[in-house]
Amino acid sequence: MSDYRIDPALVAGNHQQLAGYQAQHFLWQVHAGVATITLNRPERKNPLTFDSYAELRDLFHRLKWAQDVKAVVLVGAGGNFCSGGDVHEIIGPLVALKAPELLMFTRMTGELIKAMRACPQPIIAAVDGICAGAGAIMAMASDMRLGTARSKTAFLFNRVGLAGCDMGACAFLPRIIGQGRASELLYTGRSLGGEEGERWGFFNRLAEPEALLEQAQKMAADLVAGPSFANGITKTMLHQEWAMTIDQAIEAEAQAQAICMLTEDFKRAYEAFVAKQKPQFQGN
Amino acid sequence: MSDYRIDPALVAGNHQQLAGYQAQHFLWQVHAGVATITLNRPERKNPLTFDSYAELRDLFHRLKWAQDVKAVVLVGAGGNFCSGGDVHEIIGPLVALKAPELLMFTRMTGELIKAMRACPQPIIAAVDGICAGAGAIMAMASDMRLGTARSKTAFLFNRVGLAGCDMGACAFLPRIIGQGRASELLYTGRSLGGEEGERWGFFNRLAEPEALLEQAQKMAADLVAGPSFANGITKTMLHQEWAMTIDQAIEAEAQAQAICMLTEDFKRAYEAFVAKQKPQFQGN
Amino acid sequence: MSDYRIDPALVAGNHQQLAGYQAQHFLWQVHAGVATITLNRPERKNPLTFDSYAELRDLFHRLKWAQDVKAVVLVGAGGNFCSGGDVHEIIGPLVALKAPELLMFTRMTGELIKAMRACPQPIIAAVDGICAGAGAIMAMASDMRLGTARSKTAFLFNRVGLAGCDMGACAFLPRIIGQGRASELLYTGRSLGGEEGERWGFFNRLAEPEALLEQAQKMAADLVAGPSFANGITKTMLHQEWAMTIDQAIEAEAQAQAICMLTEDFKRAYEAFVAKQKPQFQGN
Repeated sequence: MSDYRIDPALVAGNHQQLAGYQAQHFLWQVHAGVATITLNRPERKNPLTFDSYAELRDLFHRLKWAQDVKAVVLVGAGGNFCSGGDVHEIIGPLVALKAPELLMFTRMTGELIKAMRACPQPIIAAVDGICAGAGAIMAMASDMRLGTARSKTAFLFNRVGLAGCDMGACAFLPRIIGQGRASELLYTGRSLGGEEGERWGFFNRLAEPEALLEQAQKMAADLVAGPSFANGITKTMLHQEWAMTIDQAIEAEAQAQAICMLTEDFKRAYEAFVAKQKPQFQGN
Repeated sequence: MSDYRIDPALVAGNHQQLAGYQAQHFLWQVHAGVATITLNRPERKNPLTFDSYAELRDLFHRLKWAQDVKAVVLVGAGGNFCSGGDVHEIIGPLVALKAPELLMFTRMTGELIKAMRACPQPIIAAVDGICAGAGAIMAMASDMRLGTARSKTAFLFNRVGLAGCDMGACAFLPRIIGQGRASELLYTGRSLGGEEGERWGFFNRLAEPEALLEQAQKMAADLVAGPSFANGITKTMLHQEWAMTIDQAIEAEAQAQAICMLTEDFKRAYEAFVAKQKPQFQGN
Repeated sequence: MSDYRIDPALVAGNHQQLAGYQAQHFLWQVHAGVATITLNRPERKNPLTFDSYAELRDLFHRLKWAQDVKAVVLVGAGGNFCSGGDVHEIIGPLVALKAPELLMFTRMTGELIKAMRACPQPIIAAVDGICAGAGAIMAMASDMRLGTARSKTAFLFNRVGLAGCDMGACAFLPRIIGQGRASELLYTGRSLGGEEGERWGFFNRLAEPEALLEQAQKMAADLVAGPSFANGITKTMLHQEWAMTIDQAIEAEAQAQAICMLTEDFKRAYEAFVAKQKPQFQGN
């Protein structure tokens, strides 16, 4: 058996270590494989700006190759998740732009969502307080969502004269909460409360505000303790199969799962079971 | 800047004004941009006939270009929504037809649903009492649904010897209430009650029977007061993205939203926000 | 009118009668058109083996042409549904295999699901107790599911080091319970309880354990008493339309329903209605 291994730097450049990344427009912290992104302009309820959009997009692109981050928690500082695109720093400038520049902007925001879906790390949004506009989109584009009873999630695009189709909302939201409920939220921009959101399947569960981040990080840590390579394949396939036929999806999964059966983690699980122990997964 | 404007008559013919339309086989009323279609044969629980199918199809086609209707409410007279295709006037004749004529009929009914989805106006179904067969399909193909506790919605095709696949039911219903629940309703034809329907996301909410139409019209009026061009784009994209991949949907929305950012309504919303006022949208 | 009829043997070989089938690796019973498959290794909670996978796959393939089975109930013996792939008889051998053989295995298990979706008979899973791994997949791939309050359904692939993408899970499960809830179950492998499963739409309803099989068989018998040819078309279209656009789905249903309007069952229903009787469907 050869000792030759792919040097991750060949495909990933210098992106494979992100624990030491110095974020400019939000907080970034990595602990034992769990990265926490904290939107951190609490005095404005954590709005997004051109700069924070671009940095988030670039960071999620780099996460595709990161070896030291296995799950991501997305949270806002100060009791709110995110108030969306800043009215003064984003909406004001957009009003003055022409079509090609506007498309550059909407494509940039779309790239953030594509990057969130393309990286292998499951993303858990921890949603308290205001979760509006682009903030609601980032929550929606996460893999799982914890909320609080007092959280208010609003796809409020039509309140600012825009359509509900922003960064994939008309594709994602109906698959999460159903077509009729999604239509209402997108046409009206009304707030979805925490309990209603849990009942509809937008939130996986609710937490007390003071326990929210901790529970999201615990959920992420549990994923990191699992077979993280396989979890990344789960994420890939949830993405790939979105618009496949059933028969295509079954063939795609046959191939994807066969790869996972070649991992050491699969062997570790079997050997642990035989030895009546808990498996220690290593993500390979 | 040129004063040249597209004459809507070039693309829309004489279809752009529908407030004065004289309906033959149902009631048609337009008030401040909200059109109300009332199925109106209450003594038979408002069944559909060949004639009413055809007129509804043609009217929804014309709505595609209408300038004076911004939202549609669909309701039945006399405490019932619609009992479906009339047994004597539709089912009886169909039993005697050959394949090509039958396909003409099923394509005509399908055209009604296509036209309901292709017009830019959000459609709100106000469902009380019996909502059966083709009536249930029209409710399902609406954008939003208000129900009553006593409403009974039944996709009862298999009760008359037919398949549950009628006018798109096998595509729509699973996306609204989930694949398992939709399968049960389509295989069995059983009635879905109002409370169950709200719990499943078929109904956006329930109203008292005597307040149902008023609440549906209020919901429609709120949409009309919003950015109705952008709302039409929301509807288009909910349709367009049905079978796209996520990445395709994100690109499609980047383009669609860029168009909306060029509207006056977007500017109006921004300027109203800066002036701490409520925006007055005009649908352009 | 010609008396010429297609001899089913031409297309179906000797597969059209399955009531007398002698099952090797599970129990098989047919009563008045309702087949009951009982996974029957209760001392191990009814695990699947290479042999039972293969026999189930072959049997569901044969059901495609069977004339004497109109609905299928899937159940486990001894208070559990199915514990999934046997650790010793399946997982142990898999750990030692190379890629091509692994793909043969994952394709075989995928073929079982394809065959379950391709046969015209609606499948009702009766789920009590443990429903895990491949067992959860078989329940998910059924058309309808009855559960019990004590049932525990777990897509526990990641607990054995694998991805959640197994036999179509990343395609089916989000359409049944929504993308967010499905993601949690697939990433974590946690158990879904009976009441939660009913609330989420995974189960159509819950039954008492001692009444579960009887209720599932009653539900199946009701389907058999319905227009079974048309029910098979419903199943086909739920499958066909999975990744169609809305307009494609509407055209596909126009064609499929036109075929059903040519059946005797459609005529029987009309004539029974006129005579104020209950129709006696015959599945043709």
